[in-house]
Amino acid sequence: MQKDKLLMTPGPTMIPPRVLEVMSRQIIHHRTKEFEAIFDGLEEDLKFVFQTKNVVLIMASSGTGAMESAVVNMFSPGDKVLAISIGAFGDRFAEIAKTYGLNVEKLSVNWGEAVNIDDVRNILEADKNKEIKGILMTHNETSTGVTNNVEAVGKLVKGTDRLLIVDAISSLGGLDLQTDNWGADVVVTGSQKGLMSPPGLSFVSVSEKAWEACNRSTLPKFYWDYRKYKKGILKEVSENPPYTPAISLITGQAEALKIIKEEGLQNVFDRHRKLALATQKGVEALGLKLLPKQEVSSYIITAVNAPEGIDIEKVRKIMNLKYDIMVTGGQKHLKGKIFRIGHCGFVDGFDIIKTFAALEYALDEVGYKVEFGASLSAVQKALV
Amino acid sequence: MQKDKLLMTPGPTMIPPRVLEVMSRQIIHHRTKEFEAIFDGLEEDLKFVFQTKNVVLIMASSGTGAMESAVVNMFSPGDKVLAISIGAFGDRFAEIAKTYGLNVEKLSVNWGEAVNIDDVRNILEADKNKEIKGILMTHNETSTGVTNNVEAVGKLVKGTDRLLIVDAISSLGGLDLQTDNWGADVVVTGSQKGLMSPPGLSFVSVSEKAWEACNRSTLPKFYWDYRKYKKGILKEVSENPPYTPAISLITGQAEALKIIKEEGLQNVFDRHRKLALATQKGVEALGLKLLPKQEVSSYIITAVNAPEGIDIEKVRKIMNLKYDIMVTGGQKHLKGKIFRIGHCGFVDGFDIIKTFAALEYALDEVGYKVEFGASLSAVQKALV
Repeated sequence: MQKDKLLMTPGPTMIPPRVLEVMSRQIIHHRTKEFEAIFDGLEEDLKFVFQTKNVVLIMASSGTGAMESAVVNMFSPGDKVLAISIGAFGDRFAEIAKTYGLNVEKLSVNWGEAVNIDDVRNILEADKNKEIKGILMTHNETSTGVTNNVEAVGKLVKGTDRLLIVDAISSLGGLDLQTDNWGADVVVTGSQKGLMSPPGLSFVSVSEKAWEACNRSTLPKFYWDYRKYKKGILKEVSENPPYTPAISLITGQAEALKIIKEEGLQNVFDRHRKLALATQKGVEALGLKLLPKQEVSSYIITAVNAPEGIDIEKVRKIMNLKYDIMVTGGQKHLKGKIFRIGHCGFVDGFDIIKTFAALEYALDEVGYKVEFGASLSAVQKALV
Repeated sequence: MQKDKLLMTPGPTMIPPRVLEVMSRQIIHHRTKEFEAIFDGLEEDLKFVFQTKNVVLIMASSGTGAMESAVVNMFSPGDKVLAISIGAFGDRFAEIAKTYGLNVEKLSVNWGEAVNIDDVRNILEADKNKEIKGILMTHNETSTGVTNNVEAVGKLVKGTDRLLIVDAISSLGGLDLQTDNWGADVVVTGSQKGLMSPPGLSFVSVSEKAWEACNRSTLPKFYWDYRKYKKGILKEVSENPPYTPAISLITGQAEALKIIKEEGLQNVFDRHRKLALATQKGVEALGLKLLPKQEVSSYIITAVNAPEGIDIEKVRKIMNLKYDIMVTGGQKHLKGKIFRIGHCGFVDGFDIIKTFAALEYALDEVGYKVEFGASLSAVQKALV
């Protein structure tokens, strides 16, 4: 007997059966009233989860494509940007900007830390000639399990000509991200994390200030050209979206957002926070340590240092192959040094308990001293 | 009672139930042996349908994204290309090339015609200084229901330094396209037409000559950078593909290609030809005329002139709303002047008969003189 593998990973995340059912229906054509109603509903519900009045663009691509789209729509060659990087995905954003000939000032931290807001403030204040046109930042860095303070950076940018561009690929739908209130001009995300759908769709919210930047931008773009997607959504042209959309993913995503709306956005955030805090308790009960400081540890993914002398890749392998539960390893220089437990999207407390039960078995198997049930009890109590 | 709407459109096309079933399973993670096996199998089967030994890249995007990827990977700003356009999608390819600063010489024909090979030869022969670095062409132009002769253009390009870049989005898996034999350097296609899967995936085959061009190309690229995808497929890096793939679409596409292999590639081509010729007979029996000359009329989509005095959009609407069969209208200046019957992918002879039955009802309803059963009988005989 084998149940579906439980993905306690930072994406893809588990798909609710209701979403799978919708996607298993025969395809419908995208130039029909039926599809238009689904698409328009998705647009409205995306605004709800983005907490924005902005148009939210819907594209067929991975999250990386959406990050690239933000760069080519907002800037021109030679434009200076501040790229805040606290891990692998922050590095990627900076690399994309460099690829397109931007002048990238990079603010990096040790992996496992969040950006220090004073450092950002100092850089912006030192930029007397306002050369920095925009800030690229990661909301939640999955490679290190750390959440940045977008709200605080937003306060530094609001009311200036600078753009705040946020990679919210892993956070949106799991962590509170108040696009409009916090002054995030461009927010990009993907379907496969907090939004509980398969990968293949990306979503981008674009503020009024960002639309002005888009009209000034001279970088070449065709597939990513935001203006074409906007015209469709505003019904200024009949083709919406401009290119054949990923129909089945869109119908699935529309259903997944209904589930989020039914639970309530604040309840979704509260659930993720509660699951994260319970996970932290479980980690502690096993005598393990978080990679980041507790106060910046992500509510959607918990990065844990591998205990000394333990082959953590072997632990992961046992969990995966023997118990059908996937947690994630470290990326780049953290490979073998940490493991990461995702608790993002369609996850409840029992999934966390199950994960710790398997983790205890696996740790015990490789010789780490485990008192069976200790972490389960800690998790269960934290979830009361 | 309502059956699933029958899409006799040029994409999306109907999805085989086996493919829907595979896509309705719980998501699997993309960095696993299980996914790797599916992905590697898809890669092999794509080579089979592309009729190539080239690496075939697998990306998450609409077909238009793949067209753009060919331009940014093969060329540098100022490079001259010959863009052969016989309709809306040929125009799009030329427009993408212009967007990226290429020097585009456009060879256009009246909509409904295929390109004249002598015209192509003359242009290439007149280009004494070999300024033309590449040719962009559409294999099958869905906007007009016309198929171009890729083989003949291939003969003009083979053995030269020029690249032949083929938009095979609507044709691959329905029409014979011998990538290697015909000397097509870059062939791009999408999942949602002959390949019988939902939209959202694109596939690109890249010849050795094209890889050399890719290494010379200076246009900026990140998400579309072919070299990253190639490294994954050749297992030179562990991340394959480089960015989170559209997992459920990939598992579905892998299943769809199994179905094509089971039928046999030549049988698939023969079926499409037979369905097209039967459709032509049905059209004739109704006293209607093809938009293109019969000899260039596509085997995957039949474009038919609207009969004089008949509101063809109303006919389409009746077929769609009353009989749940969708055929497509005309694009751009052909809107209201033609309709198009797709017979691409998961389509059999009974689907054609059913379509003509509904077409007869609808034409009769708007006052066109119909002898009920005349076209059905013509179609049925042609399908013996």
